[in-house]
Amino acid sequence: MLIEVPANSGFGVHHLPYGVFAPLGRDYRVGVRLGDYVLDLAVLLGDSTFAQPTLNHFLAQGPGRWRVCRHAIRALCAGPLPTEAVYPLSAVHLKLPVAVGDYVDFYASIDHATNLGRLFRPDGDPLLPNWRHLPVGYHGRAGTIVVSGTEIRRPRGQRRTPSGAPAFGPSQRLDIEAELGFVVGVGSQFGAPIPVDDFAAHVFGVALVNDWSARDIQAWEYQPLGPFLGKSFATSMAAWVTPLAALRDAQVPLPAQHPEPLHYLREQQPTGLDVTMSVRWNDTTVSHPPYARMYWSPAQMLAHLTCNGAATRPGDLFASGTVSGPTRDQVGSFIELTSGGTEPVTVAGEPRTFLADGDEVVITATAPGLDGTPLTLGEVRGLIRPAAE
Amino acid sequence: MLIEVPANSGFGVHHLPYGVFAPLGRDYRVGVRLGDYVLDLAVLLGDSTFAQPTLNHFLAQGPGRWRVCRHAIRALCAGPLPTEAVYPLSAVHLKLPVAVGDYVDFYASIDHATNLGRLFRPDGDPLLPNWRHLPVGYHGRAGTIVVSGTEIRRPRGQRRTPSGAPAFGPSQRLDIEAELGFVVGVGSQFGAPIPVDDFAAHVFGVALVNDWSARDIQAWEYQPLGPFLGKSFATSMAAWVTPLAALRDAQVPLPAQHPEPLHYLREQQPTGLDVTMSVRWNDTTVSHPPYARMYWSPAQMLAHLTCNGAATRPGDLFASGTVSGPTRDQVGSFIELTSGGTEPVTVAGEPRTFLADGDEVVITATAPGLDGTPLTLGEVRGLIRPAAE
Repeated sequence: MLIEVPANSGFGVHHLPYGVFAPLGRDYRVGVRLGDYVLDLAVLLGDSTFAQPTLNHFLAQGPGRWRVCRHAIRALCAGPLPTEAVYPLSAVHLKLPVAVGDYVDFYASIDHATNLGRLFRPDGDPLLPNWRHLPVGYHGRAGTIVVSGTEIRRPRGQRRTPSGAPAFGPSQRLDIEAELGFVVGVGSQFGAPIPVDDFAAHVFGVALVNDWSARDIQAWEYQPLGPFLGKSFATSMAAWVTPLAALRDAQVPLPAQHPEPLHYLREQQPTGLDVTMSVRWNDTTVSHPPYARMYWSPAQMLAHLTCNGAATRPGDLFASGTVSGPTRDQVGSFIELTSGGTEPVTVAGEPRTFLADGDEVVITATAPGLDGTPLTLGEVRGLIRPAAE
Repeated sequence: MLIEVPANSGFGVHHLPYGVFAPLGRDYRVGVRLGDYVLDLAVLLGDSTFAQPTLNHFLAQGPGRWRVCRHAIRALCAGPLPTEAVYPLSAVHLKLPVAVGDYVDFYASIDHATNLGRLFRPDGDPLLPNWRHLPVGYHGRAGTIVVSGTEIRRPRGQRRTPSGAPAFGPSQRLDIEAELGFVVGVGSQFGAPIPVDDFAAHVFGVALVNDWSARDIQAWEYQPLGPFLGKSFATSMAAWVTPLAALRDAQVPLPAQHPEPLHYLREQQPTGLDVTMSVRWNDTTVSHPPYARMYWSPAQMLAHLTCNGAATRPGDLFASGTVSGPTRDQVGSFIELTSGGTEPVTVAGEPRTFLADGDEVVITATAPGLDGTPLTLGEVRGLIRPAAE
């Protein structure tokens, strides 16, 4: 069969993001998305690497192999495809595309860090002394990364009450963080840092991430060891991983870094991505976070994360942290959008601050594609369910 | 063959810790330690669950199965064992016994938290306001957990210099943290907290942990998101996991908790473990951290870690945080032992503060065993190699 992809689809033959899908009643396997179809790669390429329920085996095979497969798929898509390799997207089930080993979340947007600094430390410098010297980050919980569409149960936890003593109950300040995640393909050995210019030899692609955050739980717990239960209940990830190869024309220079970073963080060509995100809250689009404004590049994040010799593994995920621009219509979290919950926004006609049960958030993004038409990253969607009894 | 275990071995028939080993030139498989021998369980019990390079499959089978296997092994050890199931410990290679999904590190010793609070905030209350209300913890890096005996390369990283600007280089304040780790056997579902009294239905056993810490890297990076590269370069874990069943007679009541914890942290019988650790630094024993003094119980740690609905998986590891008592000869880190590096201790005749290249640290522990004779936990050992060029 011949698949016609509309010009504005965002999922044309120059994109081809990878995911893991199951046709009704059958096992999970690796596919690529073309328009509103999924191509079964084990059938299309006759390669058992793709008859697996995660991308990890393919990721570990490295950039040469990623390139060969991508070329082969693009060539096959130019002609009629065998019917048994093609499924309508609506007829398959999607799962988390990678088995995530370690998950690291950064804090790489200067606008986001500044906005939060102003909220939490109104009298001091909004950026802490280390912020311009290193990409601040921490480890999150890999075991609660879930695929887009998974319903999110409102977490319960401890929060401070006006008396100063904590109470236990459902979070009252449930928030999102719109982020871009980077999927490691080729890992690195224990004790061996990844040089900043070796990024493309290790990282396979990107996926949108929503790092759900319970601000009240986080505020009470996070000193001195950082966020824990305020984040670990769930992190949503898109079902489709866009290869870096599809984003070649989306590369843009990083904004200037002052002071100049230490030498292990100096890229020959510091590179960001011209990805524009959209945050939709119950069908109201509330912001357009601009990834191109991020202060630290993904190559700097990876070089920093491994500069102490930490090993990486295929399937490791590191995310940018909340993507925010300087204006209110560019922020990637509701705590910024509503100035800490003090200035409600209108969502579907109602004044709102944080997430209510039944709310749905969909994060999407576009970027310049290889063919001159925009490419659409796989969405990350989540609906809030009431807390457990 | 009949194996005679000396009465003071600590690895008698009432202990039987599990590990993963490989005889020369053969595949890794699961064994139990008896004296200075390893028993090959796939051969001894004729069960392919044990012909695996991790304990994870066995762990996931749950407490009923753990009990049946333990009884079967103990019964077989009463008689002569088939020669093909027995290897001298000196003739096998040991690897990390579990594939760790998520690793959480707590901060559960009130003496350790108080000691560090006094060092870092000499003018304030040494304990932060949240400390007595919840077991403070954070996620560490699962992919750099290594088995006892693995050599540790001194990490490089950013540290503050007297000018205020950071420099990049080998850590100058490399430290240990003597901890007890808990291995999750039966996981829990996304969205479903583990009640505090369900601890034994989920946790299989314990292993000593050394959470290597670069204090200078940590001090510069850790605000506001917690420890990252100061910890993620390596965490050492013992090769042998002691089942909780072997520690039944080591259970002791927790020290009193004031204020009373919130209801999800209230155990029917708050239970600690009478484990006494030893820290040996280049053959000088420098301290005996007493696990029985820990403020938060392991059941409270697990209940807290999942109270927001975070899922757990077989092989997840959570550790207690540094075990310290109130006196200098009971502390589990060198930053405490030397008052932040200001009061050197004598190690093998030399005044010392932090770890030098070539130093070796061995953490061991004993606990009351089932037979009235002490049981010895598998040691965790590490030797410091110079930083990479």
